[in-house]
Amino acid sequence: MATNHGLRSRRIRIKEILPSSQPMSALCVCGWVRSVRRGKEVTFIALNDGSCMANLQVVLTPEVDGFATVSRCGTGAAMQVEGELIASPAAGQEWELHARQVKILGDTDSDYPLQKKRHSFEFLRSIAHLRPRANTFGAVFRMRSALSFAIHRFFRERGFLYVHTPIITANDCEGAGEMFRVSTLPADRPPLTEGKIDWRQDFFGEKTGLTVSGQLQGELFATAFSDIYTFGPTFRAENSHTSRHAAEFWMIEPEIAFADLADDCALAEEFLRYLVRFALDECGEDLAFFNQRIEPGLIDKLETLARADFSVMTYSEAIRRLQQAPVDFEYPVAWGADLQSEHERYLTEQVVGGPLFVTDYPADIKAFYMRLNDDGRTVAAMDLLVPRVGEIIGGSQREERLDVLMGKMNSVGIEAQHLDWYLDTRRWGSCPHAGFGLGFERLLMYVTGMENIRDVIPFPRTPGHARF
Amino acid sequence: MATNHGLRSRRIRIKEILPSSQPMSALCVCGWVRSVRRGKEVTFIALNDGSCMANLQVVLTPEVDGFATVSRCGTGAAMQVEGELIASPAAGQEWELHARQVKILGDTDSDYPLQKKRHSFEFLRSIAHLRPRANTFGAVFRMRSALSFAIHRFFRERGFLYVHTPIITANDCEGAGEMFRVSTLPADRPPLTEGKIDWRQDFFGEKTGLTVSGQLQGELFATAFSDIYTFGPTFRAENSHTSRHAAEFWMIEPEIAFADLADDCALAEEFLRYLVRFALDECGEDLAFFNQRIEPGLIDKLETLARADFSVMTYSEAIRRLQQAPVDFEYPVAWGADLQSEHERYLTEQVVGGPLFVTDYPADIKAFYMRLNDDGRTVAAMDLLVPRVGEIIGGSQREERLDVLMGKMNSVGIEAQHLDWYLDTRRWGSCPHAGFGLGFERLLMYVTGMENIRDVIPFPRTPGHARF
Repeated sequence: MATNHGLRSRRIRIKEILPSSQPMSALCVCGWVRSVRRGKEVTFIALNDGSCMANLQVVLTPEVDGFATVSRCGTGAAMQVEGELIASPAAGQEWELHARQVKILGDTDSDYPLQKKRHSFEFLRSIAHLRPRANTFGAVFRMRSALSFAIHRFFRERGFLYVHTPIITANDCEGAGEMFRVSTLPADRPPLTEGKIDWRQDFFGEKTGLTVSGQLQGELFATAFSDIYTFGPTFRAENSHTSRHAAEFWMIEPEIAFADLADDCALAEEFLRYLVRFALDECGEDLAFFNQRIEPGLIDKLETLARADFSVMTYSEAIRRLQQAPVDFEYPVAWGADLQSEHERYLTEQVVGGPLFVTDYPADIKAFYMRLNDDGRTVAAMDLLVPRVGEIIGGSQREERLDVLMGKMNSVGIEAQHLDWYLDTRRWGSCPHAGFGLGFERLLMYVTGMENIRDVIPFPRTPGHARF
Repeated sequence: MATNHGLRSRRIRIKEILPSSQPMSALCVCGWVRSVRRGKEVTFIALNDGSCMANLQVVLTPEVDGFATVSRCGTGAAMQVEGELIASPAAGQEWELHARQVKILGDTDSDYPLQKKRHSFEFLRSIAHLRPRANTFGAVFRMRSALSFAIHRFFRERGFLYVHTPIITANDCEGAGEMFRVSTLPADRPPLTEGKIDWRQDFFGEKTGLTVSGQLQGELFATAFSDIYTFGPTFRAENSHTSRHAAEFWMIEPEIAFADLADDCALAEEFLRYLVRFALDECGEDLAFFNQRIEPGLIDKLETLARADFSVMTYSEAIRRLQQAPVDFEYPVAWGADLQSEHERYLTEQVVGGPLFVTDYPADIKAFYMRLNDDGRTVAAMDLLVPRVGEIIGGSQREERLDVLMGKMNSVGIEAQHLDWYLDTRRWGSCPHAGFGLGFERLLMYVTGMENIRDVIPFPRTPGHARF
C-alpha cells in the first residue's frame, strides 16, 4: 500500500531500543504499564511491550502533553509514549525515555487482578488470559516461541522434511494411551444398528479420535523423503492429575530412513544439544530470570548438558547396575520390569553423572513396532535420560521385516487389516529406519526449570479444565 | 556417542551430490528405484531419495557386487549403492554413479501400485501412504515443508511470538463454522440429568469441541507480547465435498497490537510477497515441475505477484464497480450481500489487474469481533483478493471498545459470561489491534497450481475419509 497511517509503522519495540549505543529522538513506544511511581516533580512509569523481559523507564514531568490523565492511570494500562531516549542517571538501567507526549489507550481499574505483587502460579493459572503479562510467563512463552523456531531450524539445516500428520485419526491400536473420541453424531440419540452405535453414519464413516502420535504416518513419509519430522499437537485422554501430564501437548517426532539405533541416538544427542545451545545463546535475558527466580543453577545445568559426553548402556546392564546399587529403591528392580523415575535418575545422576541412553529394552514392555533384536527377547529401543528429570526422549529402530512385524502384531492382538497401509511400507521398498519422540513441554520444563506442565502451555487442557 | 556404525553417517543425499563441481569417489547413496533399464552390458537405475525431484542415474555392470539380485529388482525397491560419481555421457544429466557395490534393502513385487506410468490424482489419493513417492507429491510436500519454514522465519525475523493456541476448546460461539465434538463419555450410554446429557461429567467438565480458529486466544497473547502469530491445525465439521474444503487444515493467524486496518493490510501484503519470493528463490526445481506439468504460466504468475502493487478499495466502491460492470453475474450484486467468487475475481482480474484489498464490509455479514467504523454500518475488515483465486487472506481490526463489543455480542446472541476472559482484555489495558487468517492449504494451492485441497494435505480428512 502506498500510504500507511497506522500506529504500527511508527512504533519501535523496547527490545530494539534498550541495546542502543546512543541517544535516540522522536521515538514512539507502546506497551503496558508495569508500575507507576508518582513524585511531586516527576512520575516514573515502567513500560513493557512483551518483546523482552526488561521494562523501559518512562519519565514524565507535569508539562508533558497528557500528564494529567497518565498520572492517574493504573497498573496494566496500555499506553503510547513519544519522546527522547536519554542516558539514565538511575542505577540498573542505561536508558530512559523522556516523554514529550503520552496517551492512555486503555486504562485499568482497581479490579485488575494482576496488581504489582507476587502471585502464586496456581492463582495465575486461573487467569491464564492475563498471566502472559507477568514476568515469569512472559519469559516462559518467549522461550516456547524461540525453541519452536530452533526445532524447525535444526531440521531444515539438516535437510529434513516437515510433515503435518493428521490430528483426527481412525487408528486406535497404537497403544500409546487413551484417546478422545471425535464425532458429529447427535450425542443424545446416536444412530443404532442392532443396539450398537452405527459409526458408519458418523462424519468420517467410522469411529475416530484425536491422535496420540504422528509416528506411523511419519514412517510413511520417511520411506519417501528419507528424513522427516513432525511437530504438532497430540492428545491423551488420561484422567491424570500430576504436574507432568496434560491432555493436549506438542510433540516432535523425527523419523530417519536408512538408519539404525546408533543413528537414532546420534540424532537425539545432536538435537538436544542444539536446542540447549540455542536457548543459552538466544534467550539469555529470560534464562537469567529463570536461573535467579525459578531454578538456581539452571544455566550451569544447561551449559553442562551442552558440553557433556552422552553415555550408552543396555537395559540389561542398567538392571545389573541398579541391583548392585547401595540404595533402597521404592520400586523393585528386575529384568523385564520397566524402569521407574527413581531408577532412571540414579543411573543418570549417580552411575554415569551425565546424559545416558539406555538401549535394548525387553520386547514385552515396548511397543509392537520396535525392531526385535537377534536375541529374540529385546528390541532396538532407546530412552535418553538426563539428570534431575529422567527420561526426556524415547525412540527406537522400527521393525522393517514384514513377517516379524506381522507376527508381533498378531501376538499383541492388532488386526493386520487395520494397519494394512502401514504394512505396505514393509511390503514394498522396505528399509531399516528409526525415530524418536520428544515431548515439547517436557523440554521446556527442563530448559526453564518450571515444575508444572500447566505453566509452560498457553492454555492448558487437563481433566476438568478447558477454559479460555 | 563415540562410535557410530550406522548407515546414516555414511550416506549422502542425492540433493547434495547433483550440484557437484567435480567427480566424487567412495559415495554411499540410498533411495528407492524409480525405473530400471536392463541392457546386455549394463543396467541403468534411476534412484530417488526424496531430497529433491531429480533422480540419480546409477550404472551397473555385471561385475558389480550384487548385480545378479539388483538386475531382477522391481520399481520401488529400496537400495543402497556404493561407487564413484562420474561425468555422464548421456544427455539430460551431468553426473552418474558407477556402482561398485549394491544391495537391495527391500524389494517390491508386481503388486506394487506405483508402477512407472501416469496415475490419476484420484487414484493416488487412494494410496496416500505411497503417493509421496510420486513426482508430483514429492514436489507438493517439499513445498509444504519449505513454506512452513518460510512462515516461521518471516515472523521470527520481525520479532513476532509464536503461540500454540489450544485445539480442544469449550468456545462454541466464534461463528466460524460447525464444530466436531470431543468427548470421553460412553457414546452409547452417556450420563443424563433430567433427560439431557450431563456434560459436567465429561473429561473437561463441560462440552468441548475442536477449534475453528485460534484468533481469540491469539488476541489474549497480542495484548501481552504486542506481535504474535499462530500456525496450527483448525477444523470444520461441514459436510462439504468441494475441492476447496477439508475438515482438518492448517491456518496462520497473526495478531498485532497497537495497529489498525492499514497496518493489517501492510502486514498481509509483506507476508504474502515474502512467501511467494521464498518459493521462487528456494524451490526452483519443484516450481519448474509445477510450471510444466500442473499450471502453465505458474512461475510468471508468482513473479508478477511478488512485484505487484497491492490496491485497496472499500466494499462500497467495489459494489459500485460491480454494478457498473458490463458482465452478467450469476449472483446478484447489492450493497449488504457478500461478494461471491465471481465478483472477487472480476475485481482483482478486470478492475485492478492485480492483488486487491477490499475493506470496510457491512457489519451484518462479518464476525462480531470486527471493529465498527464511525459510519455505524461497516466494520474495519479486509479481504485480500488475488487473480485466479479470489480471496486468499481475510482479516480485520478488532473491536477494542468494551461497550461497543458487548453491545454487538448481545445483538447477535452471544452471552458475555461465555467470553468473560475475552472481554477482560477490553476491560484492562485495551488497545487497538488487528489480525488476519491465511489458510495454509489455500496458499499451497496458489503456489503449486494444485487444484484440489486433498492433494496438498499429507493425509486429508473429508466427509467419509479418515484413512491412514
